[in-house]
Amino acid sequence: MNNDKRLNIAYIGGGSYNFGWKFFSELAAEEICATINLYDKDKQLSLTNEVIGNNLRDNPRCKSDIVFLACDTPEDALKGADIVLISISCGNTDDEAALHNIIEKYGIIQTSGEQTGPIGVINALRILPDYIKYAELIKKLCPNAWVMSLSSPMSECIDIMIKVFPEIKIFGSTNELFQTLEFIGGLVETENGVTNVRRRDIKYNLMGISGFSWFNKISYDGEDIMPIFRKYAEKFYKTGYELHPGEYKTNPFSSANKVKFDLFLRYGLIPAVSDRTIAEFCPPWYLKSKKTIENWKFSGSAVNYNKKLSIDRQGRVKPLMSGSEYLAIGGYTSDVVLQIRALIGNGNLITNACRTNKGQISNLPSNAVVASNALISKNNVQTVTSGELPDEIAAIAIRHISNQNTIVKSVLEKDLDVAFNAFLNDPLVCIDLDSAGELYKEMLSAVSKDLVYFC
Amino acid sequence: MNNDKRLNIAYIGGGSYNFGWKFFSELAAEEICATINLYDKDKQLSLTNEVIGNNLRDNPRCKSDIVFLACDTPEDALKGADIVLISISCGNTDDEAALHNIIEKYGIIQTSGEQTGPIGVINALRILPDYIKYAELIKKLCPNAWVMSLSSPMSECIDIMIKVFPEIKIFGSTNELFQTLEFIGGLVETENGVTNVRRRDIKYNLMGISGFSWFNKISYDGEDIMPIFRKYAEKFYKTGYELHPGEYKTNPFSSANKVKFDLFLRYGLIPAVSDRTIAEFCPPWYLKSKKTIENWKFSGSAVNYNKKLSIDRQGRVKPLMSGSEYLAIGGYTSDVVLQIRALIGNGNLITNACRTNKGQISNLPSNAVVASNALISKNNVQTVTSGELPDEIAAIAIRHISNQNTIVKSVLEKDLDVAFNAFLNDPLVCIDLDSAGELYKEMLSAVSKDLVYFC
Amino acid sequence: MNNDKRLNIAYIGGGSYNFGWKFFSELAAEEICATINLYDKDKQLSLTNEVIGNNLRDNPRCKSDIVFLACDTPEDALKGADIVLISISCGNTDDEAALHNIIEKYGIIQTSGEQTGPIGVINALRILPDYIKYAELIKKLCPNAWVMSLSSPMSECIDIMIKVFPEIKIFGSTNELFQTLEFIGGLVETENGVTNVRRRDIKYNLMGISGFSWFNKISYDGEDIMPIFRKYAEKFYKTGYELHPGEYKTNPFSSANKVKFDLFLRYGLIPAVSDRTIAEFCPPWYLKSKKTIENWKFSGSAVNYNKKLSIDRQGRVKPLMSGSEYLAIGGYTSDVVLQIRALIGNGNLITNACRTNKGQISNLPSNAVVASNALISKNNVQTVTSGELPDEIAAIAIRHISNQNTIVKSVLEKDLDVAFNAFLNDPLVCIDLDSAGELYKEMLSAVSKDLVYFC
Amino acid sequence: MNNDKRLNIAYIGGGSYNFGWKFFSELAAEEICATINLYDKDKQLSLTNEVIGNNLRDNPRCKSDIVFLACDTPEDALKGADIVLISISCGNTDDEAALHNIIEKYGIIQTSGEQTGPIGVINALRILPDYIKYAELIKKLCPNAWVMSLSSPMSECIDIMIKVFPEIKIFGSTNELFQTLEFIGGLVETENGVTNVRRRDIKYNLMGISGFSWFNKISYDGEDIMPIFRKYAEKFYKTGYELHPGEYKTNPFSSANKVKFDLFLRYGLIPAVSDRTIAEFCPPWYLKSKKTIENWKFSGSAVNYNKKLSIDRQGRVKPLMSGSEYLAIGGYTSDVVLQIRALIGNGNLITNACRTNKGQISNLPSNAVVASNALISKNNVQTVTSGELPDEIAAIAIRHISNQNTIVKSVLEKDLDVAFNAFLNDPLVCIDLDSAGELYKEMLSAVSKDLVYFC
Repeated sequence: MNNDKRLNIAYIGGGSYNFGWKFFSELAAEEICATINLYDKDKQLSLTNEVIGNNLRDNPRCKSDIVFLACDTPEDALKGADIVLISISCGNTDDEAALHNIIEKYGIIQTSGEQTGPIGVINALRILPDYIKYAELIKKLCPNAWVMSLSSPMSECIDIMIKVFPEIKIFGSTNELFQTLEFIGGLVETENGVTNVRRRDIKYNLMGISGFSWFNKISYDGEDIMPIFRKYAEKFYKTGYELHPGEYKTNPFSSANKVKFDLFLRYGLIPAVSDRTIAEFCPPWYLKSKKTIENWKFSGSAVNYNKKLSIDRQGRVKPLMSGSEYLAIGGYTSDVVLQIRALIGNGNLITNACRTNKGQISNLPSNAVVASNALISKNNVQTVTSGELPDEIAAIAIRHISNQNTIVKSVLEKDLDVAFNAFLNDPLVCIDLDSAGELYKEMLSAVSKDLVYFC
Repeated sequence: MNNDKRLNIAYIGGGSYNFGWKFFSELAAEEICATINLYDKDKQLSLTNEVIGNNLRDNPRCKSDIVFLACDTPEDALKGADIVLISISCGNTDDEAALHNIIEKYGIIQTSGEQTGPIGVINALRILPDYIKYAELIKKLCPNAWVMSLSSPMSECIDIMIKVFPEIKIFGSTNELFQTLEFIGGLVETENGVTNVRRRDIKYNLMGISGFSWFNKISYDGEDIMPIFRKYAEKFYKTGYELHPGEYKTNPFSSANKVKFDLFLRYGLIPAVSDRTIAEFCPPWYLKSKKTIENWKFSGSAVNYNKKLSIDRQGRVKPLMSGSEYLAIGGYTSDVVLQIRALIGNGNLITNACRTNKGQISNLPSNAVVASNALISKNNVQTVTSGELPDEIAAIAIRHISNQNTIVKSVLEKDLDVAFNAFLNDPLVCIDLDSAGELYKEMLSAVSKDLVYFC
Repeated sequence: MNNDKRLNIAYIGGGSYNFGWKFFSELAAEEICATINLYDKDKQLSLTNEVIGNNLRDNPRCKSDIVFLACDTPEDALKGADIVLISISCGNTDDEAALHNIIEKYGIIQTSGEQTGPIGVINALRILPDYIKYAELIKKLCPNAWVMSLSSPMSECIDIMIKVFPEIKIFGSTNELFQTLEFIGGLVETENGVTNVRRRDIKYNLMGISGFSWFNKISYDGEDIMPIFRKYAEKFYKTGYELHPGEYKTNPFSSANKVKFDLFLRYGLIPAVSDRTIAEFCPPWYLKSKKTIENWKFSGSAVNYNKKLSIDRQGRVKPLMSGSEYLAIGGYTSDVVLQIRALIGNGNLITNACRTNKGQISNLPSNAVVASNALISKNNVQTVTSGELPDEIAAIAIRHISNQNTIVKSVLEKDLDVAFNAFLNDPLVCIDLDSAGELYKEMLSAVSKDLVYFC
Repeated sequence: MNNDKRLNIAYIGGGSYNFGWKFFSELAAEEICATINLYDKDKQLSLTNEVIGNNLRDNPRCKSDIVFLACDTPEDALKGADIVLISISCGNTDDEAALHNIIEKYGIIQTSGEQTGPIGVINALRILPDYIKYAELIKKLCPNAWVMSLSSPMSECIDIMIKVFPEIKIFGSTNELFQTLEFIGGLVETENGVTNVRRRDIKYNLMGISGFSWFNKISYDGEDIMPIFRKYAEKFYKTGYELHPGEYKTNPFSSANKVKFDLFLRYGLIPAVSDRTIAEFCPPWYLKSKKTIENWKFSGSAVNYNKKLSIDRQGRVKPLMSGSEYLAIGGYTSDVVLQIRALIGNGNLITNACRTNKGQISNLPSNAVVASNALISKNNVQTVTSGELPDEIAAIAIRHISNQNTIVKSVLEKDLDVAFNAFLNDPLVCIDLDSAGELYKEMLSAVSKDLVYFC
């Protein structure tokens, strides 16, 4: 990576109105000189984003020198890239709704299905073939680029790229910790009578796997604040506790943190992710029925909420393209831009990353993709040794790692029967084998258009 | 161990009319000179067995020089023992029925509950405190004795003894493989047109944990017979295959081997244990409902069947005591007596054993109690390196090992809350957390008389 | 392996007058029906052995039905083999003498140089190219054969075959324990006042690597006889102790066991191999000078002794060929024939074997070739879990394992510079780097005729 | 750690005129408010340093608010400490000279004997008893303090403290990399035509153990500069290369870097430490004789040089105490003060640290004390996963780790015979066992005044 010249960023999935716009905003707030090559399967979207992105330069508050360019092919986007950002997803909210409807017929409920659960397995099968293709292109067109993978299921996406191109410089970047860090920050403010405790001021040590990750240490200004969390967990175990009371009723991504409190009190570690995320990695303790979810004060599927957000964003396209409105400058909270800054040599960043286990978590299998703290410096990403997970948490994590391995194998071997073993062994699939077989077929059939790779 | 003198066998649980009588029969068929000290919490039972056992000497076909002695205390039985046999269980068929009724209210079905499942957890809590006590006595009274543990749950019983007395010379002895070996023998007879293929003629390599153990190699007379098993699995996957057609309908310990076939076809290894046993270690694939069990052609609870057997045995007590009838000589199929023979130097025995993992199964945690082939020779038990379990099987085994560790910790710490985490994480407990909490309490309460240790 | 038909044994190195004749004698004492295909680089030798071997049938005490056949090529010998025996060596006693002379100029003394030390490295480079070739032929011509490797250096020979043909069914068979077992048997006779304690009556547990292997348990008739060994070690630490006083002065393969006593008292385990063998694996504690060797009461190079034996054997060729004299029937003490018997299904054999580490020795690197107990049954070899070596012994073993890996890599890569790192790191090479470089070149040059593979 | 109040630093070994004065200088250059409690076995020295240190405040360039206080007992110094610095050594230059003379009689040469070699073993036995005592005091008086250990032998000092007080927050801080980093910086300047490449600008990844540590990555301004090092290594392999030609002839701590070049070319990693340091960890490749050392262009013992430096420092005491002269402000190059700054929350520091292996180096034994990169932030030290050492380097490191374990065991068990096994197995002790025994006794006897702990 050479930071004298203009930075080349390839952004696969670059037609996104969600993460994409946030990323543009964030980038515009930094003194970075870069060309961002946008590739999206839906060319129209990347063309739109090219215009919206380039308009940012006209915003007087824009600090960066950035050029956006919609590319026809992933090859065009990747060729000579210094940084590759991959943030893709499969299907649309209708697909999503259909899958939720199917599993509910079998008595299974999921919140999102992005990382795990029966929907997670199906979505992995839809998205991983593209990851194989991108890994091959990266190997050919930009083997020295840093690849930042943001897509779900994160572990499988990273793992399959490494299987295809073992020398790939890849890590998983996620914002799944932010909500919890903000919540903890809020507790610190209340307890210690301070204000303005920002997410980044909470220091933590992260352990686990993507989506099922935990803090075994948290501190604020050098002070261990685990005791504060414990106090709230014990006091509000039954009722839950929110920074903004009642928010979880209208925002499906919010919760009363009851799941966090329960898991913390049982295992001694703080779930680093939202209640709705970690609930999917557990047996149906919190997801058995809609009533169970209600009792635990979080939300099931966010399909409708997402659909609404999507329409809102759609409504902003025209003004953003015409320049009558700008994307905000900064304001978003992802670590992606900070990570890019650190990779090109603008300071060291302590962050977290998903990478293959080379000792980060000593009691998870080596070579599993695990989540831990990481240190990013110029052209370098180093993970931190984090010790052992509690036995019980490790056992659940190992179950998911085993399933992830099975799914990746299934895709590499183009054999959907292999993935059925992961499907069957998912903690949320508590049904008999024959029903599971039917369910699997029904779900595959519902998204068959995305599974041509396996034909 | 000195084989010049009379062998001292302490038999804890020596009042048994089931395993006890079979053991006596087997012992009588060998040229062994031994005193068997019987201890049973129910003194009356051991007194009865003392008489029945000693009557065997009058049987002209008896080859051994054996004396049975009912002891008042475990101390009396253990003092100076060369061999300690522990085969105890908790409760009676009424308790068993009650526990089955409770879990069924919550939609959970078990076949036996001896080793795992919610009933398995409860039973572990009932039986392990006695194992602590016996471990302490063995440490004091016969530290060099070989301890053969036959009780369920086997892994936890062995593990807790080692935790209490790390130098204990212990291994788990089980007959859980016999049915499968006989079944395989039957297939070989049919396929190869031979007769009299005995269980012991089938050579195998065993891998796994007690109750969830697998053959990765089977041979007969040096010939790999995995292909024969595969042929039947593929052909009879849907209908099942029995040596004695229809037997499974009347004998709950029998089955049409459909579960074995299914697991074999999915994972490539042959379940070494019965369908009803291995089904309990899996998610509710085969146990979701009574209908599911029916489809898979095995049986749920054997409570009534056991009750009937128990009454039958009761009826034999009087004639056996009066000497008007004798126990059979030999005829049973356990390895226990063969193992004792080998330990005192009468030949080397290739058998299997449950011991802490020192390399037997390379991808299970070290120090877990695992099942593998073993070689018993004079005063020596050596386990065999067996390689790796398939990833998916290992993941399920690790889940159980984690639960076993949690249960043992719970008992050592006298804290029932700890065991709840194992309860919650059991593959058959697919219910929401609050219901699981209620279920746990209800089950504990049903057997509270056996849980005074925790008070 | 099919034991109905005549057994096909390929014997590579079959022109040997030393191990070869002993093997023939042993085979003749068993009821075995076999064809032995002899291949030797020196065709004349195998032709001679064909005659000598076939003459054995005329010996009325011969129990076996064996036919010997000298083959022109290794292909002829290996085609369709059930068992492959490889027992080859490099060079002749003149080469051997030359290498000893060279190292002594640099102040280094070795006893044999078969397994380790600077001569061991050079010999590995001479012999391993042939092993590559044989592994390729076995893969092609008899992939299901059991391969018994007897050549030195044993670990490297086995390892390189596995690297070339990973599915090879191979183990290392050695008689290096026998002398120590006989010595221990003698101690037991003296101490316990018994007679006729045969080598095979001493039960042991073996741990380590070939040539540097140890007993952590020894028993006789079930009795732990470690205390007897300790008694002699403590009493005769300074003077040594021999079964046949003074023998070591005339027989270079004998010793006063002082090295064994010293290592036992320091590390708590009994060296399983002879003093002269284990001394070569240690730093120059026992080999610093000829005076040191004298003090430790064993012998340095046996070149002259071997030369004399060789001449003696030469003298027997004519009478053996003419039939005026027979090889003895039985009488030798190798396990090779017993191992063959067990492999074809004539009983189970508890023996020892060198195989890749799959858990046998938990603190040696996995996949290193290690020595442990093993159980051989029909078409099956299983190694035994033996626990941990003491830290200090493990450290020395790991050093040799590292060197072995480096040597194997060097041969696979045809790069003599790679092997120099193993040479340099050998415990006996205590010289400065430049001298080591000269020594290495001088030795390579002395045997350059055997190193054409690297050109 | 609370950074509102004045920082309490306990400095054990605080009477030092060498590291002590450098530390004071460095501290004076930072905005730190601290009390430094000096403890030294020689009270007079700490009293002197109290005066010299406190005089620093009168230096107008002093930025810190620091108070120095000489303490009578280590208890006084440690009570309530936030940071504990331990930098002690054993004996004096006369002892040192005596030990060098003894080993040279046996044909062994060492450069320093601080970390390894026969002198290293003896020095460990002299210093470790004090470390036990300090660990016990820290446990009692300041269990939450961060302990920075600077003494040699570093691994053993850290390990024994952890053995005594497992919860201790300790890491090893060393400046052994600086010289090499400066050398590399010089190469970069020459090659790239840049100036002012400071040590801290060279980014590296460190792997190994204290004294035997290696860089597997080095970069400058994001550019991989391994190729530059390779170029010089290949070009100057025979002659060596110095930044200041000829310096090594007068400064025994300097060298022509030939050892570095040689090791790099053979193993592919750059030795992170000086030639004279790493040479002691290897077999006598570079230390066989004084001639060998000369050829490799570095120096043997620095006893005389050190003696002279010591006299120079002595001469400065009077002016420094009277205030007629001040210690410099800043200027020294240790990371100690930077590490303290980071621990109290003044920014994150990427540095290196010696800590127990929790995954830092995947092919060194877990729990060995290993050297790796580390990240220090407020009240937190995290090590980085660094992957695998090359097999050959790992084997040498494991040998030293084994010896370190043996030495620590020896001290904990107060048994000098145990340490003899480490002595014997040291790479530099290439002598026969009896001579080694005599040498060991002679060395122990020479420093017997320091070994009363073992009586």
